[in-house]
Amino acid sequence: MKFNKFVVATLTIGLSGAALAQTIGKAEDQIRWRQSVMQTQGWSMARIKANLEGSYNKDQVIQAANTIQAIANSGSGGLFQPGTDTGKGWRETNVKPEMFKDAAKLKEVGSAYNKEANEMARVAASGDAAAVKVQFGNLGKACKGCHDEFRKEEKK
Amino acid sequence: MKFNKFVVATLTIGLSGAALAQTIGKAEDQIRWRQSVMQTQGWSMARIKANLEGSYNKDQVIQAANTIQAIANSGSGGLFQPGTDTGKGWRETNVKPEMFKDAAKLKEVGSAYNKEANEMARVAASGDAAAVKVQFGNLGKACKGCHDEFRKEEKK
Repeated sequence: MKFNKFVVATLTIGLSGAALAQTIGKAEDQIRWRQSVMQTQGWSMARIKANLEGSYNKDQVIQAANTIQAIANSGSGGLFQPGTDTGKGWRETNVKPEMFKDAAKLKEVGSAYNKEANEMARVAASGDAAAVKVQFGNLGKACKGCHDEFRKEEKK
Repeated sequence: MKFNKFVVATLTIGLSGAALAQTIGKAEDQIRWRQSVMQTQGWSMARIKANLEGSYNKDQVIQAANTIQAIANSGSGGLFQPGTDTGKGWRETNVKPEMFKDAAKLKEVGSAYNKEANEMARVAASGDAAAVKVQFGNLGKACKGCHDEFRKEEKK
């Protein structure tokens, strides 16, 4: 999958893509949407994992990696508006208030997420399962980097 | 955004992408994931709509259209496994049992969704707001085509 120049340019914005154009929706919509976006990423990661642990289907891994890449470049940072560290979408948000207070850390973890997601799509396209395994680890660390900083313990 | 040959090939499979590789997750996971996937599409459509109705930001529309395209080509049809016309993800599923009984209709509406989503991404990249407006209408009809057939009335 190839992205145009704009999308590449937004990599440096990372999760702070809120600066882009209109912010839409009420707080409850934004929280539900961001929970949905993250679940879609979770589904995609689970698919790649299943392929690495079971029989490897190149095409399914590409589908999953392309989804991850598109969402990582979607500007979903705009769904994390100040004041939405409390509130309910599908469920109560798990965002820590710190997310809205540490712009430098947010940019750091957001940029890592973008970088590794783009690399995941590139590696998936190669069909090299061993390289996908390595990159899956790198991407997982980038996800965890943000979760550790800005997500409360999952409520089960 | 360009997709490789495989992804183009799956267009004919549409929502019935269940044939691809492993199916993962329990029924409740699959229902939550598909609800999340659809909400992510809904968010993206709402963003395009806001740009058409307010000031037009080409880059935001591209982000939204690329997300729609990636998800439409993600094989999320695999999340609609037989037997999941009842069950709870984020909420009770709205899928009608008919979805699992009319493969021809499913293929028809799924293929339209894929086609219009790919075209949406192509048109968004052009930055031509008038053309985006037309294609937004076409894609909305394709979404509605499936919802009318296979989705129960939204529970509020």
